[in-house]
Amino acid sequence: MNALFTQQLTVLNAGLQSFADNITRAGGDAVALSWQPPAGGDREGGRVLASLLNHPQIEAANEQAMAQYLAAQPMLVDVMRAGEAIPALDKHKRILHAGPPIAWNDMCGPVQGAILGAILYEQWADTLEQAQALIEQGEVSFEPCHHYDAVAPMAGIISRSMPLWVVENTENSQRVFSNFNEGLGKVLRFGANGDGVIEHLQWMGTELAEAMKAMLAESGPIELKPIMAQALHMGDEVHNRNIAATGLLMKQLLPALLSTALPVEQIQRAIRFITANDHFFLNLSMAACKSMLKAAEGVPGSTMVTVMARNGVNFGIRLSGTGDTWFQAPANPVDGLFFPGYGVDDAAADLGDSAITETAGVGGFAMASSPAIVKFVGGTPADATQNSRSMQRVTIGSNPAFTLPALNFAPTAAGIDARKVLDSSVLPIINTGIAHKQAGVGQIGAGITTAPMSCFVDALSALARQISR
Amino acid sequence: MNALFTQQLTVLNAGLQSFADNITRAGGDAVALSWQPPAGGDREGGRVLASLLNHPQIEAANEQAMAQYLAAQPMLVDVMRAGEAIPALDKHKRILHAGPPIAWNDMCGPVQGAILGAILYEQWADTLEQAQALIEQGEVSFEPCHHYDAVAPMAGIISRSMPLWVVENTENSQRVFSNFNEGLGKVLRFGANGDGVIEHLQWMGTELAEAMKAMLAESGPIELKPIMAQALHMGDEVHNRNIAATGLLMKQLLPALLSTALPVEQIQRAIRFITANDHFFLNLSMAACKSMLKAAEGVPGSTMVTVMARNGVNFGIRLSGTGDTWFQAPANPVDGLFFPGYGVDDAAADLGDSAITETAGVGGFAMASSPAIVKFVGGTPADATQNSRSMQRVTIGSNPAFTLPALNFAPTAAGIDARKVLDSSVLPIINTGIAHKQAGVGQIGAGITTAPMSCFVDALSALARQISR
Repeated sequence: MNALFTQQLTVLNAGLQSFADNITRAGGDAVALSWQPPAGGDREGGRVLASLLNHPQIEAANEQAMAQYLAAQPMLVDVMRAGEAIPALDKHKRILHAGPPIAWNDMCGPVQGAILGAILYEQWADTLEQAQALIEQGEVSFEPCHHYDAVAPMAGIISRSMPLWVVENTENSQRVFSNFNEGLGKVLRFGANGDGVIEHLQWMGTELAEAMKAMLAESGPIELKPIMAQALHMGDEVHNRNIAATGLLMKQLLPALLSTALPVEQIQRAIRFITANDHFFLNLSMAACKSMLKAAEGVPGSTMVTVMARNGVNFGIRLSGTGDTWFQAPANPVDGLFFPGYGVDDAAADLGDSAITETAGVGGFAMASSPAIVKFVGGTPADATQNSRSMQRVTIGSNPAFTLPALNFAPTAAGIDARKVLDSSVLPIINTGIAHKQAGVGQIGAGITTAPMSCFVDALSALARQISR
Repeated sequence: MNALFTQQLTVLNAGLQSFADNITRAGGDAVALSWQPPAGGDREGGRVLASLLNHPQIEAANEQAMAQYLAAQPMLVDVMRAGEAIPALDKHKRILHAGPPIAWNDMCGPVQGAILGAILYEQWADTLEQAQALIEQGEVSFEPCHHYDAVAPMAGIISRSMPLWVVENTENSQRVFSNFNEGLGKVLRFGANGDGVIEHLQWMGTELAEAMKAMLAESGPIELKPIMAQALHMGDEVHNRNIAATGLLMKQLLPALLSTALPVEQIQRAIRFITANDHFFLNLSMAACKSMLKAAEGVPGSTMVTVMARNGVNFGIRLSGTGDTWFQAPANPVDGLFFPGYGVDDAAADLGDSAITETAGVGGFAMASSPAIVKFVGGTPADATQNSRSMQRVTIGSNPAFTLPALNFAPTAAGIDARKVLDSSVLPIINTGIAHKQAGVGQIGAGITTAPMSCFVDALSALARQISR
């Protein structure tokens, strides 16, 4: 102890910067570590975390969940009517939505608008007023897409007559689903429900669905991970930017589409729609990500995050080890770029199942692949690269199937470990579109947001109760 | 002078590193500048350069040439038979080739093989032996593509029955031409001339040409710079990597192709060919670059480089101020990656008109946009970025139409100033494919090479003789 007072000290300061400043001012030598208490200083979070770190059962469970995620081989195999793919939709007047469960009265404007539109589309009512009355009479029930292994962007509405992409993991034969991307402009996923929107959905549910199904019958199953991997080398992060992936998909499928026996006018209309929609691949990227993460679900003790999703009010997550339970918190605000004439006061809260892409290691986690996306979500290419780097701090490992040229082909950070989120106080980053809070106005911007810390604290608390030390 | 011996010196050393090392060893303080004598130490080059630096006529001429290059708006307007677009090809048995002029006996294997194939394709002879005899009798003449405002990759063969893309600069109505890309495998541009190659050329010259012409009649003119600009944000450098640009072109043109009155089988075959050929856009990128540079030709006194091209033996350049005169030197070796089983001893010398892309500020100059290309040409993404940065040292300015995400959307270096090449001793960088030196083996690798210094010295010497100081 005496030595402390007789020799020159070099101080490593973990905590407030001002402690280090004082030492430096007094002529001492101090290095201030960039350190924060776990879980952003949350006491319960810190306690739970301490009980779960270096835990043999959890390490083994995460290794298993991660291996199952990495081994997944999602293939696009078919197109089915939603009621056929998910029989519960044919049994009841039931509509699926994005994010964790939420009651009608609590839903945000775009989700309510989209549900009313889906009721018109299903011809359960002739007017918006009748549709609203039907809901108020309790005739229509609502449930998250994720409850049926489905994912859908923004409002995330799936009703029985809509066509779904069917994606099968050939490793375990599990099937997952996503709806078709409607394109931009007035669309149901942003809460629009006018005549044009419903007519467009009708065309998608009949002619387009028929063309896509016939095309896949001709082509056979399509591997989705190689398309995503190649798109990551072409400036996409396959969440908010899908222009390259859409092109690669169509390059692969066009010969099959042209080989179907369908009338050439029907093929023309399908191709016109797809070539005009740079987000066409998004829903397939989401389904592929859901497929990879479904493979990792239900491993007892695993702290790996298998779902992140938003319903326009709350952000919800699920862990592999806690199964179907949702852990929710109010969604964080979105830091983004707004289209001219709009601002943060116009924005709905963070919305959609599309954060499944970040959960699977792409999207915001792979922003280094997509420097051009900063023109859309804000920031600089250096920020994008830094985001990809920092996500390595919260993941179990990385995914060698998805590499980032700007990081010298390093694999993307993947397999979010809820413990590491608490330990580092680094929140998972999500690239997201921003919807107007009123139904039907549509997209008003895009930006970057984060998953709220308390979801992860609550999820780990629940897991800790299941686990023995 | 006495002060030199009485005070502490800090030495700035321009020249040999060992001078600085000696000072440092003696306890002095020396910074070694990374400096080289102009023109790599060439005495004649240094003398010529001194006479041309800060020369009012040259500065004004370069400003004009650069402005004309920047203002060019190349549009894809039509497809024509080569003999129709370039009447000299119908008048004589004349075949165009890549690079500067060269006599039959001096040509490399792939160019000779490709010329023999073109003679079979034109049915001027029935066998390779007859074709060879025809050439030895002096019945066939050869000329560079550039002499007719045309460009073509590798061997660069254009004969009268081949289809050409017609690209028009809407700023000045000048037209330039390029041939169609044949795809990979056994192809004429690498010197292959077997039956399959000739049959494929026949299909391209009839059915494919008809489909492309009908498609353009339906679509109207297509702006090429926006496609190139977008592809630069999608991992292409539009020389050795054209996968994104090919997709963007087809996305734009597919609806028109499907709207033609052509039989669906013909459309199917065209689409199958194009979707299987990631280099399909290369020839259009080259034509667009030729169009931009043709706009800059013939400005008296301008030291701007308007052509860089290789014939498999020599590298040739042209300056705006020296018009049609070629300045040639033996091509530099290519530093690259070889396909398995091949090495540098198998390689033909640097070949093709495709260095027109670097001359226009893309290709090797835009490598920062294409980190994934290092998997093809060698090096690391950091090298690719550094190459784009270093090209700023040899150009008059940059092209705001073409921006590089990895350099925070900086515009590409463009408008090579031959004086700056001498002054900096930095040679223009070229991404290039490597052909086997024997006709018909095909591509055996890809890599990076540079333009030889003596071309630039000779071109400036010629310009100096025209100019008064």
